[in-house]
Amino acid sequence: MSKLATIASVSFRNNSPYILPQIRSSFSRFPKMLSSSQSSAIHSSNSPRNSTMTPDSINQRVRTMEYAVRGALPIRAEQIQRDLEAGSKDYNFNKTIFCNIGNPQQLEQKPITFLRQVSSLVEYPELLSLENSSHTKALFPEDAIQRAKDVLSYVGSSVGAYTGSTGLPKVRQSVANFIKQRDGFESSPDNIQLTNGASGAVERVLELIVSDPSVGIMIPIPQYPLYTASLTRFGAQAVPYYLNESTDWGMDVSGLDKVINDARSKGINVKSIVVINPGNPTGGVLSEQNMQEIIKFCEKEKIVLLADEVYQTNVYMPDQKPFHSFKKIACQLDSPVEMFSFHSISKGMIGECGRRGGYLEMHNISPEIKEILFKMASVSLCSNVLGQIAVDIMVNPPKPNDPSYKLYNEEINGIYSSLKLRSQKLCDAFNKQENMSCRPAQGAMYLFPQIVLPSKFVEKCKSEGKEPDQEYSMMMLEATGVCVVPGSGFGQVPGTYHFRSTFLPPERDFDNFIATFDKFHSSFMSEFRN
Amino acid sequence: MSKLATIASVSFRNNSPYILPQIRSSFSRFPKMLSSSQSSAIHSSNSPRNSTMTPDSINQRVRTMEYAVRGALPIRAEQIQRDLEAGSKDYNFNKTIFCNIGNPQQLEQKPITFLRQVSSLVEYPELLSLENSSHTKALFPEDAIQRAKDVLSYVGSSVGAYTGSTGLPKVRQSVANFIKQRDGFESSPDNIQLTNGASGAVERVLELIVSDPSVGIMIPIPQYPLYTASLTRFGAQAVPYYLNESTDWGMDVSGLDKVINDARSKGINVKSIVVINPGNPTGGVLSEQNMQEIIKFCEKEKIVLLADEVYQTNVYMPDQKPFHSFKKIACQLDSPVEMFSFHSISKGMIGECGRRGGYLEMHNISPEIKEILFKMASVSLCSNVLGQIAVDIMVNPPKPNDPSYKLYNEEINGIYSSLKLRSQKLCDAFNKQENMSCRPAQGAMYLFPQIVLPSKFVEKCKSEGKEPDQEYSMMMLEATGVCVVPGSGFGQVPGTYHFRSTFLPPERDFDNFIATFDKFHSSFMSEFRN
Repeated sequence: MSKLATIASVSFRNNSPYILPQIRSSFSRFPKMLSSSQSSAIHSSNSPRNSTMTPDSINQRVRTMEYAVRGALPIRAEQIQRDLEAGSKDYNFNKTIFCNIGNPQQLEQKPITFLRQVSSLVEYPELLSLENSSHTKALFPEDAIQRAKDVLSYVGSSVGAYTGSTGLPKVRQSVANFIKQRDGFESSPDNIQLTNGASGAVERVLELIVSDPSVGIMIPIPQYPLYTASLTRFGAQAVPYYLNESTDWGMDVSGLDKVINDARSKGINVKSIVVINPGNPTGGVLSEQNMQEIIKFCEKEKIVLLADEVYQTNVYMPDQKPFHSFKKIACQLDSPVEMFSFHSISKGMIGECGRRGGYLEMHNISPEIKEILFKMASVSLCSNVLGQIAVDIMVNPPKPNDPSYKLYNEEINGIYSSLKLRSQKLCDAFNKQENMSCRPAQGAMYLFPQIVLPSKFVEKCKSEGKEPDQEYSMMMLEATGVCVVPGSGFGQVPGTYHFRSTFLPPERDFDNFIATFDKFHSSFMSEFRN
Repeated sequence: MSKLATIASVSFRNNSPYILPQIRSSFSRFPKMLSSSQSSAIHSSNSPRNSTMTPDSINQRVRTMEYAVRGALPIRAEQIQRDLEAGSKDYNFNKTIFCNIGNPQQLEQKPITFLRQVSSLVEYPELLSLENSSHTKALFPEDAIQRAKDVLSYVGSSVGAYTGSTGLPKVRQSVANFIKQRDGFESSPDNIQLTNGASGAVERVLELIVSDPSVGIMIPIPQYPLYTASLTRFGAQAVPYYLNESTDWGMDVSGLDKVINDARSKGINVKSIVVINPGNPTGGVLSEQNMQEIIKFCEKEKIVLLADEVYQTNVYMPDQKPFHSFKKIACQLDSPVEMFSFHSISKGMIGECGRRGGYLEMHNISPEIKEILFKMASVSLCSNVLGQIAVDIMVNPPKPNDPSYKLYNEEINGIYSSLKLRSQKLCDAFNKQENMSCRPAQGAMYLFPQIVLPSKFVEKCKSEGKEPDQEYSMMMLEATGVCVVPGSGFGQVPGTYHFRSTFLPPERDFDNFIATFDKFHSSFMSEFRN
């Protein structure tokens, strides 16, 4: 049994899928897993002669905080990539493929043309001057030009100026309109904050909530490691609730009672629950009934709901498993639940990760708390303006009859269909492997297959002090160039092993990707099969 | 005496300018100063029926954290602006002027053309395609086109992808080259992290250093309130050292010994000193000798130096008071001092505040600490890519003989000369007022005049529970439309009163700006003169 499993199993009782591991609030092993040669990639030679700052003297929360998505695997993958670029012949492949992170445009996904056209024009407003108009009209469609003029008018002439702390009023209004259109319930721009990606929004809200080290936040397991990292950082306790792999990572809401009661009986002051829907890393999409139950659970327990909905348009079975926002369900129930919802331009079909745009919506949050969250936004001045503008374009795209509508629609639909196809293809490939099983992606950008690792391999890893899934993933990287994230980075039922892979590589790479993985896994099984 | 002065004077002994006030680590009065009508601007009507989140239940550090630059004054100024836009005739002016924040492009400063041309091209790489080349060549100079191609090649095709956690390797290399060129000493890209403005960098380093509530960080008074806000946020103590107004806000380094000893005698674990050079809000520029002394002080006391150098090119007396970087002075002294330096695209002549680009350089920082700072960067994925690219252009601008060089040079020099002129004009205007004195700006973007407020006015404010400089500034706003920040937001010697004003309004607004201020102050003095 792995180190994590050993620690976590302390409270693994009665075969309940709901356990409260006595573990630090994060799972991966970032700093310790760096070999000295790997770690040299991130520091240079100007070492101090006599350090006053040492790992023991600094903030121990950030020291122990861990974040698997960008841990030892991708650092090794970047090293391999550099080796390959320098002409190394030491590998059986000629490029690394970064499936560790949902970064579509790194894997050749084309940006949405209209978004880029508007961004290009607002960057250099001279393009809109009369004297340049003939060239500009030859290069840009009429509606992109008009939109750029609108944007420049609402930013007050330059995208280079700070905006108000929570973002441009006009963009917050667009977001509110989008939410109303999506849900059928009112939304106010005063409840919207524009942020540097959804990550910036999640961090801000968690920092707001965590008042002292007795505070616990319920998080799904498996989870996106931003949550465990942030809880370690802010000094709170993760209170894990397990998703059910056998029902396509569904949620057994009735089990939440036991989780919260167990936590409270240990003196943990549970203040909030995080729900990621569609799920990361699981790809599960919650049913409406589940969501109603969660809201009622929050009401009953007087806890705040954090709804991470960044994959709301990445839904691949829209008939059986449509996306509903928690805001909508809360409004339908006329619930007083206090809620923060998060969305982003990094995911969906837009995939503008590097632009760092996102927003949070507050629902049923008191004026006093809103003022404090406003002040928190103020200290960092504002989120970046081009990210704000991209949020506006995401929520307010070209409309039917606009010159750009046809192309926009083709691009969105093309990316959507291709993502769906690739998710199915990769899922099928995983399911064909010996000792592997993979639930289909109902949503998001990831698959999270389970591998039943041979005991011979698990014992070997244990004797070497290694995490079996981390070791398996590292071997896969060395053999195939494909970088994934081991399940231990997200949390998993002790004794089970998974990894998370995006299905974002371009279609033309897919057959090769699957074939090399197939070969690796077969050879791995031949070596370690019991 | 004001509330701050009363509290601070507890330890104001022996007429020393160096005092250690027993105050919370911030000075302004953000949330409490909002009237209910003002605060309604930042929240809407969907109030909760029965809140579980209350000001008492949340993180008390963020609750008490204060940030004057965006406090009650600018909120009121925005309200006035909205009134004016809605046609109100209630004011003696027709627009508000935001001198509370160094936001040049909000006040009509033109962006640097080359930076915007490259940004525009990388946003929409179709402009670089063969079929568009004739139009593109008509709109963009050759070197902007070439630079855009270079950028797209080093970002790996799209500005919409996440970069590595600490930023693009090529940009970090450019920054290292720039630093080497500036200082004459080596710099390594492995010591550079690209961040969302310098604020993001400062927050990251302070969070790293602050290990527990006994930690103290020495900060100048007056200071930029990011520091006090962040120290409250991370739970550390501000250990103030006072700048000397009578020597143009110079630093009396010998007095630092008393400050640190007093703090340590009270059980404060002083770990670091912040130096802002050129100074904000003071405009002072440190002498080389001062800097050497500060470095030796850090060595002797084994504390870490944080060098906020975002105004390094805003230096208006380059012969008498040139800018030197702390990195250079430390290298000249071959000092082992552990140091973080900060720079930004928001200031200088570039003024791209809304783009949120900046960097930190680590010097003499141990590999273990660098790894932890790298991990901190990872959790938020990366700083925004267009901000990173702007950093590259800032540190690597067009060169002599490049087609864009002439225009670039004209733009930079034009902004520089105008800033210098405006700083002198405003300083002269302040110095002509009764009971006011203002030190010239040696650097940065601000003046910080002192007003000897009539005792009649001070008594009146005290009896109403108001800060006199806050009240004076609010009256100025209501009378002139000019929004400044009261000195209490930055800290000041108890019993003295100041405000900070940028000198960024466009030259054509200056005479009007000065005339309305003149009128306001005369009438204020007539009313309250002793």
